[in-house]
Amino acid sequence: MIVVMQHGAGREKIDHVVSEIGKHGFKAHLSEGQERTIIGIVGDGRLTDLQHLENLPGVDAIVKVLKPFKLVGRDFHPADTVVKLDGVEIGADKVVIMAGPCAIESESQLYAAAKAVKEAGAKVLRGGAFKPRSSPYSFQGLGEEGLKLMARVKEEFGLLSVTEALTPATVELVAEYTDIIQIGARNMQNFGLLREVGKIDRPVLLKRGMMNTVEELLLSAEYILAEGNGRVILCERGIRTFEKYTRATLDVSCIPVCKRYSHLPVIADPSHAAGSWSYVAGLSMAAIAAGADGLLVEVHPDPASALSDGKQSLRPEKFQALMKQLKAVAAVMGRSL
Amino acid sequence: MIVVMQHGAGREKIDHVVSEIGKHGFKAHLSEGQERTIIGIVGDGRLTDLQHLENLPGVDAIVKVLKPFKLVGRDFHPADTVVKLDGVEIGADKVVIMAGPCAIESESQLYAAAKAVKEAGAKVLRGGAFKPRSSPYSFQGLGEEGLKLMARVKEEFGLLSVTEALTPATVELVAEYTDIIQIGARNMQNFGLLREVGKIDRPVLLKRGMMNTVEELLLSAEYILAEGNGRVILCERGIRTFEKYTRATLDVSCIPVCKRYSHLPVIADPSHAAGSWSYVAGLSMAAIAAGADGLLVEVHPDPASALSDGKQSLRPEKFQALMKQLKAVAAVMGRSL
Amino acid sequence: MIVVMQHGAGREKIDHVVSEIGKHGFKAHLSEGQERTIIGIVGDGRLTDLQHLENLPGVDAIVKVLKPFKLVGRDFHPADTVVKLDGVEIGADKVVIMAGPCAIESESQLYAAAKAVKEAGAKVLRGGAFKPRSSPYSFQGLGEEGLKLMARVKEEFGLLSVTEALTPATVELVAEYTDIIQIGARNMQNFGLLREVGKIDRPVLLKRGMMNTVEELLLSAEYILAEGNGRVILCERGIRTFEKYTRATLDVSCIPVCKRYSHLPVIADPSHAAGSWSYVAGLSMAAIAAGADGLLVEVHPDPASALSDGKQSLRPEKFQALMKQLKAVAAVMGRSL
Amino acid sequence: MIVVMQHGAGREKIDHVVSEIGKHGFKAHLSEGQERTIIGIVGDGRLTDLQHLENLPGVDAIVKVLKPFKLVGRDFHPADTVVKLDGVEIGADKVVIMAGPCAIESESQLYAAAKAVKEAGAKVLRGGAFKPRSSPYSFQGLGEEGLKLMARVKEEFGLLSVTEALTPATVELVAEYTDIIQIGARNMQNFGLLREVGKIDRPVLLKRGMMNTVEELLLSAEYILAEGNGRVILCERGIRTFEKYTRATLDVSCIPVCKRYSHLPVIADPSHAAGSWSYVAGLSMAAIAAGADGLLVEVHPDPASALSDGKQSLRPEKFQALMKQLKAVAAVMGRSL
Repeated sequence: MIVVMQHGAGREKIDHVVSEIGKHGFKAHLSEGQERTIIGIVGDGRLTDLQHLENLPGVDAIVKVLKPFKLVGRDFHPADTVVKLDGVEIGADKVVIMAGPCAIESESQLYAAAKAVKEAGAKVLRGGAFKPRSSPYSFQGLGEEGLKLMARVKEEFGLLSVTEALTPATVELVAEYTDIIQIGARNMQNFGLLREVGKIDRPVLLKRGMMNTVEELLLSAEYILAEGNGRVILCERGIRTFEKYTRATLDVSCIPVCKRYSHLPVIADPSHAAGSWSYVAGLSMAAIAAGADGLLVEVHPDPASALSDGKQSLRPEKFQALMKQLKAVAAVMGRSL
Repeated sequence: MIVVMQHGAGREKIDHVVSEIGKHGFKAHLSEGQERTIIGIVGDGRLTDLQHLENLPGVDAIVKVLKPFKLVGRDFHPADTVVKLDGVEIGADKVVIMAGPCAIESESQLYAAAKAVKEAGAKVLRGGAFKPRSSPYSFQGLGEEGLKLMARVKEEFGLLSVTEALTPATVELVAEYTDIIQIGARNMQNFGLLREVGKIDRPVLLKRGMMNTVEELLLSAEYILAEGNGRVILCERGIRTFEKYTRATLDVSCIPVCKRYSHLPVIADPSHAAGSWSYVAGLSMAAIAAGADGLLVEVHPDPASALSDGKQSLRPEKFQALMKQLKAVAAVMGRSL
Repeated sequence: MIVVMQHGAGREKIDHVVSEIGKHGFKAHLSEGQERTIIGIVGDGRLTDLQHLENLPGVDAIVKVLKPFKLVGRDFHPADTVVKLDGVEIGADKVVIMAGPCAIESESQLYAAAKAVKEAGAKVLRGGAFKPRSSPYSFQGLGEEGLKLMARVKEEFGLLSVTEALTPATVELVAEYTDIIQIGARNMQNFGLLREVGKIDRPVLLKRGMMNTVEELLLSAEYILAEGNGRVILCERGIRTFEKYTRATLDVSCIPVCKRYSHLPVIADPSHAAGSWSYVAGLSMAAIAAGADGLLVEVHPDPASALSDGKQSLRPEKFQALMKQLKAVAAVMGRSL
Repeated sequence: MIVVMQHGAGREKIDHVVSEIGKHGFKAHLSEGQERTIIGIVGDGRLTDLQHLENLPGVDAIVKVLKPFKLVGRDFHPADTVVKLDGVEIGADKVVIMAGPCAIESESQLYAAAKAVKEAGAKVLRGGAFKPRSSPYSFQGLGEEGLKLMARVKEEFGLLSVTEALTPATVELVAEYTDIIQIGARNMQNFGLLREVGKIDRPVLLKRGMMNTVEELLLSAEYILAEGNGRVILCERGIRTFEKYTRATLDVSCIPVCKRYSHLPVIADPSHAAGSWSYVAGLSMAAIAAGADGLLVEVHPDPASALSDGKQSLRPEKFQALMKQLKAVAAVMGRSL
């Protein structure tokens, strides 16, 4: 961290800042420029919040030099992390496709979706039992009944499952029935929930919040790793911007950026970003070509009757066609499906 | 709601849409334009999600006509709601100032802050016991001990108190010690938490999420009212934009917009928006001049040693000076402090 | 267009709106819902601005139904437009790569860049002679001297050239020396400039403004087509968001969205979006996999000494490696380079 | 400026960076931290672009320490600038209100608007003769005829006038007929235009682009001052965000932020930000309470028949009522109207 002093800040103010830095256990390193003095803080600023130094007299700004995350970063863990689960590896050679309906609606719906998804070559079945909805009047999910359905159906088709946990209190319940626990975009900074999934022995699929920076995504992952759970999969699902033709803006750059700074695997959710099934294929291809380790795709046997997000769900035959294309683009990336 | 058909969509597709609308219990009303047919859906579209109709063949788009909230809206509740608590009224003639430190750090800190706040004329003491922080390495609050401190100090000074509840499980605990329960920006769409505070008998201060539209803010308030708790105070605290000189962008328009569409009181938090104490006075004045019913301001006896957000906290003497100005601008608005 | 009346707006107000609609030469079509009356406006609302109807008493909102563009849209021009120039076709089977330095700095620099670009298989040489820079103290380009250099060098290597025109007054000058005229992101809504390039016989590369929606991009293209120039190439180059690890956010969805609504070819500029060379390969691959017809890539023989945007420029050897990968991904899309 | 080296960058790479810094005429100042080396660049980095150093081997990032503007900044010009024109002072004690229609439509319309504006106490008449419109099918303004009308009408009422220049070629023409030249939001980074208005002897009203940072606004003003014209008035008019209930988000913080870093006067345009007349009063009050030196307000004698932006225009009687309120809030700020 660097403290930039104001134009004309005198010796007394500089000394005061240096002394405050010392109080927090850091060393100060002065550099007097033509117009301003800057003071380098020597020590690991990630573990101590020194932002309040900006409030000292004569200080103009505090500039962070190091990235604020540690466990998820590559500096001390250069090799890629591979999340392993029952023979499926996320972050390794194979691109892993997770697919299924937005919400679990009924046995027949989930069964039909699982069948389609399995036949097309996906490895993980997705489906929400607890649905976070903007309006209290929208369908909120089947709850525990949905979890049980999911457990039965994924078993029958030999798929893994991923479903969302909404509150700290339900993490254990969800973990009982599902293989991968999803933290949704709206909960990316629900720190109590992050700590809870950090304590259990299940891979966590952490979705980027729609208005969170990549840095904050990595810091949220840091919460989980700090509790002891190292099996975190990052997921880009679109951020909120001014653009109106899509539901969100898939930040495809998030994939190479995460790969540069972190060792964790990264997947993309093209469905929530697009908000319309007609863009899902294009975004899926883009994500894999940008280096994603997998995808989370919404597939519904009958989108026009879906209780949630039908508009952005692929029909089984469209999904099957997409999987063929994905196989080809994965091969270009030196990977397989 | 209105269904816009694609250019050239034929009779069969139109009939299909009309029949689907009927299945959901609504009436369809056709209007054939020069280039396209549009189909009006007659009925209360707020209570049923019909977005999936967009997936029917021949449909180009679904356009919402009504605002999706009901209980918080002015259509059926034109008069302003006044939130009353122990003689303090929020949303009535008096502008209510809530002030105090970001986080409760120690008895002496809270005591000094409460004293300053009380002397300057504020009615409510703010202070966090559970702090949501982006980094797991930042100070996370004193927890229940902080709540107890808060209860003691606010009692002594004859102030009301407001503090944040982070998880559904701690709502009751927070309610035991505090007068107004705050839902923080990161939890505005934590629907389990919203439902929980909807069930208790305490006013709720609902902060707008930094990534949420005003419509979503009102829908989140709708969750609380739908559970039976009508004492909700809306709070604008800045949204996330591309601008970098401030921590967030205070959306001052949110105040008249909320006043137009909703009967609930609206306050502003200039401190989190500004991110720097030097803009707090200007934003506070702006919010009251735009019609806000109150403010939530960070005041710290010694900002340079604050464990959280010191940079944006006012010193007691600055706060006292601000209160004088606020009194004058409130008078211009036909109100008092 | 649809006029939504306020809750409780009476007969008199409705009649007034209907009569105003008639005055503008449109027909009104009433639809009385449970709570509100909506009035459909029958006629081509794209060519008349009726937004001010929102100011009539009793009106709640005006809702647009049709997309506001016409000449660039697919409704009346379903087939893809192919921009042809000296044997190069943009928007046809071959993916067209345009590459070169951000700014033309010297003959040796441009010569080295052109050589690298040609050898790697690009068809168009890019390079700016007039540079729009945020700061008046940054390098502003070589001007006409740069244009002449460009003309000489592209000739020698048998490349086409693309360079930016900044003002209406210099359009003719730029057209004299270059094959494709670029309209930069900052000028996407410089309507005088758009009209000027609409009058000349040269393909136009229209970059999306960093603050503009896809709809506005298409409307800006409409300005050019309306003047008679149909050879417009759309270019996604990243939009401005809150994310800080990249210079802009490449909106990869813009590619399939433009393809859906417009018949014009679409390319992407991964370099300006990324702001760092290390993400350029990933974004380039993503754009082609999402269906882009080409790329505009910054390549510099010695990025560390570049006078502009060196940070995001690829060295020749990196570009050559990228071209191989692009060839493979183009093949997956059924295209070649 | 500070160069942050990568974790583990060795002596050779550090020496290379130091030597490159020397080549550009700056001194390097090393600071070796626990994990990384940082290199301070001593000298005025505002006048030289050193961003490309980021491309040197071993460099992680370049961090700017100084604000990149100089002439518009307070460091070397601490006192407020007052823009004077025919007895009207902008940036002094009096708050200056500029009002009138969005577009000049006819003599009777402009006459009626001018009369209303004058009677209510405004000092400057606004009105556009050249209108930048997103769609080529929208009304584009009366051109020179409009300028002449404006000159006649403002003369008759003893008002000053402000109108927009769209292209460098028309700056002189506009300057011939008007007192203050406006640079619109879409042209904030039209650098050729900025240079042109920098050369003439007329105050310039520089509007912030809807997706430009305050820093970029100040840099655009720097372009004008660098050409010799010091009479620049900054104008906040709303930025583009994800919020949909208003046309743009008035960034009221821009006012105190500009006041902190720059000596130039700052006004606000509440009409374009709001996009609806019903929020204009609230935003106007907010802007003055936040410290603005004036306002630019749309007033139209008959908004429902306006050819442009009628929806956001105030009727004369609403404007008159607003002026009374503004007078009161100006008094609170120690100012008058």
